[in-house]
Amino acid sequence: MREIRLNEHERLDDLMRSGRQIIQNTQEFCFSLDAVLLAHFVKLKRSQRVLELGTGTGVIPLLIADMAARVDAVELNPVMAKLAARNVWINELEQKIFVREGDFRQIDSLYPRESFDVVLANPPYRPVRHGQVNRMSGVARARHEFTASLEDVVTAARYALRFGGHFAMVHLPERLGEIITAMHAHQMEPKRLCMVQPRENRAPNMMLIEAVVGAAPGGLRVQPPLIVHEADGGYTREILQIYGMA
Amino acid sequence: MREIRLNEHERLDDLMRSGRQIIQNTQEFCFSLDAVLLAHFVKLKRSQRVLELGTGTGVIPLLIADMAARVDAVELNPVMAKLAARNVWINELEQKIFVREGDFRQIDSLYPRESFDVVLANPPYRPVRHGQVNRMSGVARARHEFTASLEDVVTAARYALRFGGHFAMVHLPERLGEIITAMHAHQMEPKRLCMVQPRENRAPNMMLIEAVVGAAPGGLRVQPPLIVHEADGGYTREILQIYGMA
Repeated sequence: MREIRLNEHERLDDLMRSGRQIIQNTQEFCFSLDAVLLAHFVKLKRSQRVLELGTGTGVIPLLIADMAARVDAVELNPVMAKLAARNVWINELEQKIFVREGDFRQIDSLYPRESFDVVLANPPYRPVRHGQVNRMSGVARARHEFTASLEDVVTAARYALRFGGHFAMVHLPERLGEIITAMHAHQMEPKRLCMVQPRENRAPNMMLIEAVVGAAPGGLRVQPPLIVHEADGGYTREILQIYGMA
Repeated sequence: MREIRLNEHERLDDLMRSGRQIIQNTQEFCFSLDAVLLAHFVKLKRSQRVLELGTGTGVIPLLIADMAARVDAVELNPVMAKLAARNVWINELEQKIFVREGDFRQIDSLYPRESFDVVLANPPYRPVRHGQVNRMSGVARARHEFTASLEDVVTAARYALRFGGHFAMVHLPERLGEIITAMHAHQMEPKRLCMVQPRENRAPNMMLIEAVVGAAPGGLRVQPPLIVHEADGGYTREILQIYGMA
């Protein structure tokens, strides 16, 4: 671990299981459970080349670096792209993780076509509605599809993935229909789905989905749901294990 | 209830909550939890006209008859179509439920276009593979897509439904991708989804899905999963309530 100098509004957090640390800017979007679950959901081989679309603080590359050959990550927000690059540097991972500031809606100017085995995305969840477009903060842009729609994410994933490559995403259950339709339109078929429930007996409020480029339709493996909290409010054993705390 | 005469291989079962009885032929497909869950999942108004595609014994029309204005049901297997009609008769519902023997792949010869508010289907779950086509029993045909594919079911549902009408189906989670893609191709968007798990912490092995004709994409409501069995093997309270036993 390299020497860390924090600027104003920055804090240093542990990435538990990975043994790494991450600088976050409290005035920008900070990573949350979504990113940790996506990093845990995806299945990687050490020979694989991975791309993350919209990396934010770079948390997902930091969490998966040991499981892949190389991780590329693109981030539109220049403040976040610099932060992600610093996070790579403090963890001495600059031979493994390559952060670029850029817009994945123009992905053909960033990476060669079909050059990745796996693409990951923890994109903005909510469509932009009228009245939200002006005066959006970086945090709001990370939550709403102001800079990239679901269609943009799926289009970029398909461009970047080789035939047979995997695309894994965390998103809202309420958008499952649109997601599957968009995947299908881009020659990707969903093969694995995991709903995330805040508690037992509650509707899921998050989901993890993985599609394969060029696969035949059918054979979607729906996993048992992940339950986040016990009835008493604490994390379930499964979530603690994912965080590396159990 | 009219007088009931059972033939060879027939048995009489209670349809618990509805207070009705149903004759089943032990050599043909007998209804199971799927049908009961679908009848419970669908939301009906007393003014609505409902069609069931592939009714089998007629169990779903018997369960929902009190919640709709009129229920039509079509069944390809002549033995089952006659049995369904007898089940309507013994329950004195011939003013409410109308069973036709027929093939919903030619639905335009059976019903007028866009004449129903709700369509229900508990179709065969599994695609036919090579070697299964010959010598298929009625039971096998009820389980495999020998007589109607997923595409056939969705096509017939769209034909029969008015704009804004609802299509509810019970099916396998592993086919969710194909189902959503087929619905979208036929101007139906999924709006409600309920996974059914055999137990807590187990992957779902059944699902209930409802789509609306002509709806905008998005806004899929994923319900809390239905859990069928307690750890001790007995039914959960929720399932007992659906059966009318709690």
